[in-house]
Amino acid sequence: MNSPAEKLEDDLHSSEDGCATLTGELFEWASRFDKHVADSASSYGASDYRFPSLIAAKSLAPIAYLRSFPHLATFVTSGRRDDAALRALAEESGTAEQIDVTADRFDTVDHLLTPATCYHFYPLFAGQHIESPLLLTARCQCFRRETHYVPLQRQWCFEMREVVCIGDSGGIDEFVSHWSTAMEALAGSLGLTAEWQSATDPFFDPQGDPKALAQIIEPSKQELCIPGGLAIGSVNKHRSFFGESYEIHCGAEPAQSACVAFGIERWLSAMIDVHGSDVPSWPKPGEAQ
Amino acid sequence: MNSPAEKLEDDLHSSEDGCATLTGELFEWASRFDKHVADSASSYGASDYRFPSLIAAKSLAPIAYLRSFPHLATFVTSGRRDDAALRALAEESGTAEQIDVTADRFDTVDHLLTPATCYHFYPLFAGQHIESPLLLTARCQCFRRETHYVPLQRQWCFEMREVVCIGDSGGIDEFVSHWSTAMEALAGSLGLTAEWQSATDPFFDPQGDPKALAQIIEPSKQELCIPGGLAIGSVNKHRSFFGESYEIHCGAEPAQSACVAFGIERWLSAMIDVHGSDVPSWPKPGEAQ
Repeated sequence: MNSPAEKLEDDLHSSEDGCATLTGELFEWASRFDKHVADSASSYGASDYRFPSLIAAKSLAPIAYLRSFPHLATFVTSGRRDDAALRALAEESGTAEQIDVTADRFDTVDHLLTPATCYHFYPLFAGQHIESPLLLTARCQCFRRETHYVPLQRQWCFEMREVVCIGDSGGIDEFVSHWSTAMEALAGSLGLTAEWQSATDPFFDPQGDPKALAQIIEPSKQELCIPGGLAIGSVNKHRSFFGESYEIHCGAEPAQSACVAFGIERWLSAMIDVHGSDVPSWPKPGEAQ
Repeated sequence: MNSPAEKLEDDLHSSEDGCATLTGELFEWASRFDKHVADSASSYGASDYRFPSLIAAKSLAPIAYLRSFPHLATFVTSGRRDDAALRALAEESGTAEQIDVTADRFDTVDHLLTPATCYHFYPLFAGQHIESPLLLTARCQCFRRETHYVPLQRQWCFEMREVVCIGDSGGIDEFVSHWSTAMEALAGSLGLTAEWQSATDPFFDPQGDPKALAQIIEPSKQELCIPGGLAIGSVNKHRSFFGESYEIHCGAEPAQSACVAFGIERWLSAMIDVHGSDVPSWPKPGEAQ
């Protein structure tokens, strides 16, 4: 009979490269957690989406993502569509653990791996005029390159469930109020102590460009943090930043937007901290205490 | 009131870059389809896993994946961890739609995007001795670079549910027999006509290396194809190829393995072909006809 700590070790395979594989009870709990948030979003009127991990560079260009976060971005490329180049790649890299990126072997990058779930939504509604607030949700694998990783807490690849509102200021205020309360209540129902703190995102060079994402989003981002400071979720009012960048209008005005984000691995980390390794004994999301 | 064709258009956002976004009834059907296969796998005794889309180059090195499929591979890189290089990247690429990959700006590649779900399993059990067959399942976003894309049929990014057995020859035979029948029965229950055909994977240079993946896996791969030839699933007996490559033993012998794969978007494409755009009227996976 395995101890809870051994079972947890079987259920979580973390590697030093910032990736984690889940199975068993831990994966079941994570799936149930995500389903609970998705169901809550659906009850609130949000439509659920499935996105690819890939996002086109041109979809991020309107917000100049790479100006604010060049250090966090993950870029995607392929071998050049040229038989000689591909043959050389196959010969040189067939069994390699590391491969140099050189312009003669690789295609120009036109896609990144998405750094956040909600970046998919704004390009999808670019140029549209909406009459009433759009309520949207999705879970997506997201990617942020870091200099070091901590399993479940700071990963290169992690899953993020977001709920997003694109609308007018009245709709945004009601959305933010509803979801701040809901996220806090969910943490409480799971036995987690958490409090709101102003966010301090690691912008690369915030002074470098006064119009950058860093300057505009930063002041209004709040994170729900557990003791020790780990953020398990965030609420972010973008005002009309995305509406203007992607020319989305609500009525006659540029649309305002806001998002709430649940970092799924971080909720797992918080649960392990508070409740230990016996996953079946944890409170279950959405179950009366 | 939108027509079924208009509703389907709202539920499926395909772009020319080989990506698709799903929502609404189509996403619900796809989720239900995957859940049905996952539940069937669970009833069969398989453990469900959640993997990242990233896979380490060193995890693919033992099978020399890049020797057989340099043209299909998607490589991942990040800006070089150097302030000057990152600043230059931010300035040059901040709002770019295309970015040249050059060794002075980008890190050496040590990860790819996984081209198939099951490639995650063999490294996970590398070096292990197992006594009885391992039954495993996972759904994963997979990535294959192509020269052209067709929505739902041939995508750069697509979702693949696999069920995998790693064990001895007796276990593998029973596994393949069970899942070939189950996949065919599932297609039939959904009103799809399909038949088994030998696979013809697009290996880059199969004559180039007699030990390559191409030579070894090819003869035993069978695909379940709908009229017109689109493969919606496959069954692949690997003999001891992965067992030897990753030093997995079952009893005293190198383990044998087999996988069955369901290409989720292709099942959607087949359903649209046969049943039209009114998704709510489609037969539902796992529901008595």
